[in-house]
Amino acid sequence: MDIRVINSLTYEDFVNIFGNVVEKCPLISAAIWSHRPFKDLEDVETHITEFIHSLSDSGKEGILRCHPDLAGRDLQTGALTRESQEEQSQAGMTTLDSREILDMYRLNAEYKERFGFPFIICVRLNKKAEILRQLSERLKNDRAAERERAIEEVKKICSLRLHSIVLSDMQTKL
Amino acid sequence: MDIRVINSLTYEDFVNIFGNVVEKCPLISAAIWSHRPFKDLEDVETHITEFIHSLSDSGKEGILRCHPDLAGRDLQTGALTRESQEEQSQAGMTTLDSREILDMYRLNAEYKERFGFPFIICVRLNKKAEILRQLSERLKNDRAAERERAIEEVKKICSLRLHSIVLSDMQTKL
Repeated sequence: MDIRVINSLTYEDFVNIFGNVVEKCPLISAAIWSHRPFKDLEDVETHITEFIHSLSDSGKEGILRCHPDLAGRDLQTGALTRESQEEQSQAGMTTLDSREILDMYRLNAEYKERFGFPFIICVRLNKKAEILRQLSERLKNDRAAERERAIEEVKKICSLRLHSIVLSDMQTKL
Repeated sequence: MDIRVINSLTYEDFVNIFGNVVEKCPLISAAIWSHRPFKDLEDVETHITEFIHSLSDSGKEGILRCHPDLAGRDLQTGALTRESQEEQSQAGMTTLDSREILDMYRLNAEYKERFGFPFIICVRLNKKAEILRQLSERLKNDRAAERERAIEEVKKICSLRLHSIVLSDMQTKL
């Protein structure tokens, strides 16, 4: 998908295509449409990042709370968004053994109790063991540090989703 | 639903219940959960309003772009959120005659072309003739004035949805 194609999209098509690059936050892609024309895909990403950083602490926490639990109920009941389903499956979250499921459940619950938002990690960039290790490790952060850490993960997920959309469109055309 | 009940909700339950008081913007209710405990329902509403007003112009336009067209394709195909479906039906948007449908389509298209977001009006507070009159009238505004006007309508819709959720819960208990 050429940037000229992206710049020619109506807001409705833009939100349909890019509305979930930040999980369940179509407001963000809907907002940055105002900044067209974009120079390139990095420019799209920069505007998303700027939007996220312009939010108050509670606004950033709002973004985090729109994310599902990792290996949680939504994965088991098939209620995840398509993007999250693919990402969590690829990271092995659908093939945890019973011990790993219990560990994940316990640590997620502890994390949410402590921070008031779910544990978020870019699962495409981490394997199962590393994910569990980071979940234990990040539980020791204070809330402000962990909020910023989680937002960094949201930005990584967003970047990969953006590039994946554009790449899959190019492959369709080949 | 007593405010103590609202204050006791996990963020997940809070977002499940109040996530669509601003159409397709669960980020907003997810964000204001940080401000618990709330004094009363008006306090919830005040935090939502403050969040909306804290956004940049493009952020406000993002909220507007998450709304469906009035009497548009989503209404005809049944793709509206439950709340929008009820509101548009009650305002007579499902029983327009062919002349009214054409007028609505033409004016909506003109409005979106001019402003880059859809025409939003609190349909619970307006009858069909008044809605069509305002659509024609507001097309004459400049973009900044119309953005603010539309945000005022979003706040009215939000307030009625909030009160409706709490009222229906009380009726269930009677």
